[in-house]
Amino acid sequence: MNALIERIRLEASHLGRGIVKLDSLINHQLDPQLTLEMGRAFKERLEAAGVSGVTRVLTVEVSGIAAALTTALAFGVPMVYARKTRPITMSADPYTAGAVSRTKGGEVVLSVSRDFLGSSDKVVIIDDFLASGRTLLAMVDIVRQSGATLLGVGGIVEKIYDGGRALLEPLGVPVVSLACIESADESGIVVSGGR
Amino acid sequence: MNALIERIRLEASHLGRGIVKLDSLINHQLDPQLTLEMGRAFKERLEAAGVSGVTRVLTVEVSGIAAALTTALAFGVPMVYARKTRPITMSADPYTAGAVSRTKGGEVVLSVSRDFLGSSDKVVIIDDFLASGRTLLAMVDIVRQSGATLLGVGGIVEKIYDGGRALLEPLGVPVVSLACIESADESGIVVSGGR
Repeated sequence: MNALIERIRLEASHLGRGIVKLDSLINHQLDPQLTLEMGRAFKERLEAAGVSGVTRVLTVEVSGIAAALTTALAFGVPMVYARKTRPITMSADPYTAGAVSRTKGGEVVLSVSRDFLGSSDKVVIIDDFLASGRTLLAMVDIVRQSGATLLGVGGIVEKIYDGGRALLEPLGVPVVSLACIESADESGIVVSGGR
Repeated sequence: MNALIERIRLEASHLGRGIVKLDSLINHQLDPQLTLEMGRAFKERLEAAGVSGVTRVLTVEVSGIAAALTTALAFGVPMVYARKTRPITMSADPYTAGAVSRTKGGEVVLSVSRDFLGSSDKVVIIDDFLASGRTLLAMVDIVRQSGATLLGVGGIVEKIYDGGRALLEPLGVPVVSLACIESADESGIVVSGGR
């Protein structure tokens, strides 16, 4: 995704300790056309890696929602987002898994209603960042609880130095990213193509 | 939006005290194609009411994001979502306004970075529910702080019995909804067309 890589080069800034500010296009302001193209790119990349028969795209609120929506649109299937706070409208006894909030700190419990994920589903998980991989692993845990089949995992931006890919590759499904940040420090941010 | 009205009739349930569960298509699972059509419908309805020159679509995390994204896609402009927890990646000194969380309870402070909303902007605010109108008014307050011009307000589902429209109409801009819930009680849910 050259358009995405170009935007990251222009707009990302390093806040220290490897934290990259990308809120002009991922987690505060969004470019809807670019987000639509991200969804198409995820479908293309996942299918090229052998994924087929997807029935659900799963993500976590908040920043995964936009790209998961456009990915689900590309696949022509429903999208489900895990909640970090359980709304009073959620059905009883959801699937749950613990995760650590990256930018807010603290533990959160992800919840997905049994109404929207079941054993006949074939699932792709999409999130904004592929960083430590721990939030994505929590989503994988929810997919396992539901009895659904995990087909693939995608992150818009992979932070290579956080090492999440090593945690996800043992799952044996394609793990794709649309752009990579190789390093982020005082000398700048090094961006490369997705993997 | 007949497709939306039909889905609400089939899928909404009343949880008591006027609270309507619609998590199969608005705040937990989403139908991407229907969400795309909501965006087109918001544009069409707002333009029919005289709105033109939109430069930004504004919403609040979480459940407003999907429809605001597709509305921004229809208008061909960026979308910005107010944060309820300020991430460490947000620039200092954002615009802020207090709001009450409808389904989670408690006060929240909405924050929008000054980087993404300014005095030259012409803004449409989109949210999932037009209920009491208080969250939408908090967003209007943020638009005012930025010096931007408010052009219109849209809610996917208007809960007539919560009376939010009366709070918003004095703003003097079009207020549109794509479907209305006239009443929700033990006897059932009465759905009608948007306003």
